[in-house]
Amino acid sequence: MVREYNVAILGATGAVGRRMIDQLAKSTIPVKSVKLLASSRSAGMVLKFRDQDLVVEETTPESFDGVDLVLSSAGGAVSKKFLPEAVKRGAVCVDNTSAFRMEPDVPLVVPEVNSDALKDHHGIIANPNCSTIQMVMALEPIRRKFGLKQIIVSTYQAASGAGQVAIDELKKEAQDYLDGKDMQADAQILPTKGDKKHYPLAFNLLPQIDVLEDSGYSHEEWKMIHETKKIMLNDMNAKDIKVTATCVRVPVPIAHGESVYFTVEDESATTQDIMDAVANFPGVVLEDDIKHQIYPQPINAAGKRETFVGRIRPDYENPGAFNMWIVADNLLKGAAWNTVENAEYLVKMNLI
Amino acid sequence: MVREYNVAILGATGAVGRRMIDQLAKSTIPVKSVKLLASSRSAGMVLKFRDQDLVVEETTPESFDGVDLVLSSAGGAVSKKFLPEAVKRGAVCVDNTSAFRMEPDVPLVVPEVNSDALKDHHGIIANPNCSTIQMVMALEPIRRKFGLKQIIVSTYQAASGAGQVAIDELKKEAQDYLDGKDMQADAQILPTKGDKKHYPLAFNLLPQIDVLEDSGYSHEEWKMIHETKKIMLNDMNAKDIKVTATCVRVPVPIAHGESVYFTVEDESATTQDIMDAVANFPGVVLEDDIKHQIYPQPINAAGKRETFVGRIRPDYENPGAFNMWIVADNLLKGAAWNTVENAEYLVKMNLI
Repeated sequence: MVREYNVAILGATGAVGRRMIDQLAKSTIPVKSVKLLASSRSAGMVLKFRDQDLVVEETTPESFDGVDLVLSSAGGAVSKKFLPEAVKRGAVCVDNTSAFRMEPDVPLVVPEVNSDALKDHHGIIANPNCSTIQMVMALEPIRRKFGLKQIIVSTYQAASGAGQVAIDELKKEAQDYLDGKDMQADAQILPTKGDKKHYPLAFNLLPQIDVLEDSGYSHEEWKMIHETKKIMLNDMNAKDIKVTATCVRVPVPIAHGESVYFTVEDESATTQDIMDAVANFPGVVLEDDIKHQIYPQPINAAGKRETFVGRIRPDYENPGAFNMWIVADNLLKGAAWNTVENAEYLVKMNLI
Repeated sequence: MVREYNVAILGATGAVGRRMIDQLAKSTIPVKSVKLLASSRSAGMVLKFRDQDLVVEETTPESFDGVDLVLSSAGGAVSKKFLPEAVKRGAVCVDNTSAFRMEPDVPLVVPEVNSDALKDHHGIIANPNCSTIQMVMALEPIRRKFGLKQIIVSTYQAASGAGQVAIDELKKEAQDYLDGKDMQADAQILPTKGDKKHYPLAFNLLPQIDVLEDSGYSHEEWKMIHETKKIMLNDMNAKDIKVTATCVRVPVPIAHGESVYFTVEDESATTQDIMDAVANFPGVVLEDDIKHQIYPQPINAAGKRETFVGRIRPDYENPGAFNMWIVADNLLKGAAWNTVENAEYLVKMNLI
């Protein structure tokens, strides 16, 4: 008989949580029961899992009694408080927050890239940051075939990285702008909720995602640098691949863009070689036909699980160096789908 | 007695042309008369220069009789047709189109960077592409003090680079999106008028500016590479500075953003040294105070002549390498103001 799992979704009412419910419904995981957990504010809300109506419950340590699998996206503080309680009760947790990502004994996993790391879990698996996930999806096939020396990335990140409230804020600002009204009063969340000043994103660009640190880098940029190293090299400070990042929020609701410059060890690699490697990697779709103006766009990637890659071309002045353009749905592959996919792998690999 | 100039503005009714009228009005150029020229379609329109009402005239070769200075922004074909006629009649032309930029005997000038090149003019001076201008403004002070080896740029370009029609298209798409309507029918111009397919820009990203060429690069990317070399090194194919570019259109009406990674020859240069060099360059404003969330934003740069630079920080893994973020009004410093400024320099340098 197939084993079936009791699943809890922590942070079920948010933009990512709702997509976790949907991705779980579409997944290969045999589900016995689903429990939707959130803060007291959202308790009592009714959400659908497949054709079942489920009432959202307030999270307590006892919520995890009898739970086999936790999918979590309720913010770092909530994960830190409740996931150890869930593990204590025998559950395995896939956490979409940054709470545990840099813990040495917590695997940080994009299944297509480093599913082997799941074997070393101690109850918690961390889902990487959205912008990191889509970048390593596009670069891992290249690293495996030709080796990677350096990554320089500039991001074009969607508002939804800051939650549904940021999408709503963007839309309100956009309407006010079109109506000739001032947008400043609408800016309550972005660039980042925890910071002092807030700026409009509609018809604007904000070169700040998460807080700006003494190093000069934003915390989002720090994540892209160190998570990439941990995922690809199993060491957040590895020097084998050099990584630097500039993260910019753009007035797009869903799906991040990334302009990535990279250098490979094997300088005999041609543009066609790079395209072939990318096209054959699971979960990646090559959209690169410039004669027909085919390249990844957020409005096409939104709602899809795949990572889309295009505009691959060499830096003609630097052998072994290339540019490319990556787009993926930050709420799906960047969050909800990668979380559920990690759980699918845990099931398939008998690690739960 | 101060010499006064008869000025003609070719393409006076466009987004750049109207700003040329305004920038000329605010300039130090002693103006005797202004003639507004356009196509027959726009002839008869009345526009203001200072407090004068001027009637737009249809352009003919004879329009340039008695004209000392031509400011031109009516498209490459119009410049190719009429500017030689203007030169034949004794006028000096500053041309904002790409028609003559790569001609060996045509100076390509950003006055703060290479005003000396104006001395070699033969009647036509070319204004560089908008995205190139703001990048060389930020990099030239660094090149002068520390030498430049490599530039890797990713752009975040505003709709107005494709004219007022593209701004109107962006706004119409945005309103339709907010009203829950399909945007595809609104897409008539972008990514580029001359190409077959058109895609919505509102709430989206388009990694194509101008046509895509067999090299894999867009023509806009080609311009950034070769114009930068011509301006900084006086040779469009110079190898002393390696340049590569990825150009992306973003849903912003006015002011381009640029994420620039660069390496300097003098690896002893500190972040503070780079900031000081940038801050002391004419026409550049350093907006780099991350403790107070101060960095360049399009909504602040729109309407200003200056180039704004911030987020300067080292690539900690590569000595002599830095990231920075540049924003400027593509219609002013990127077009109308740089054109008028070139004319101001021509007057000051007695080259007209």
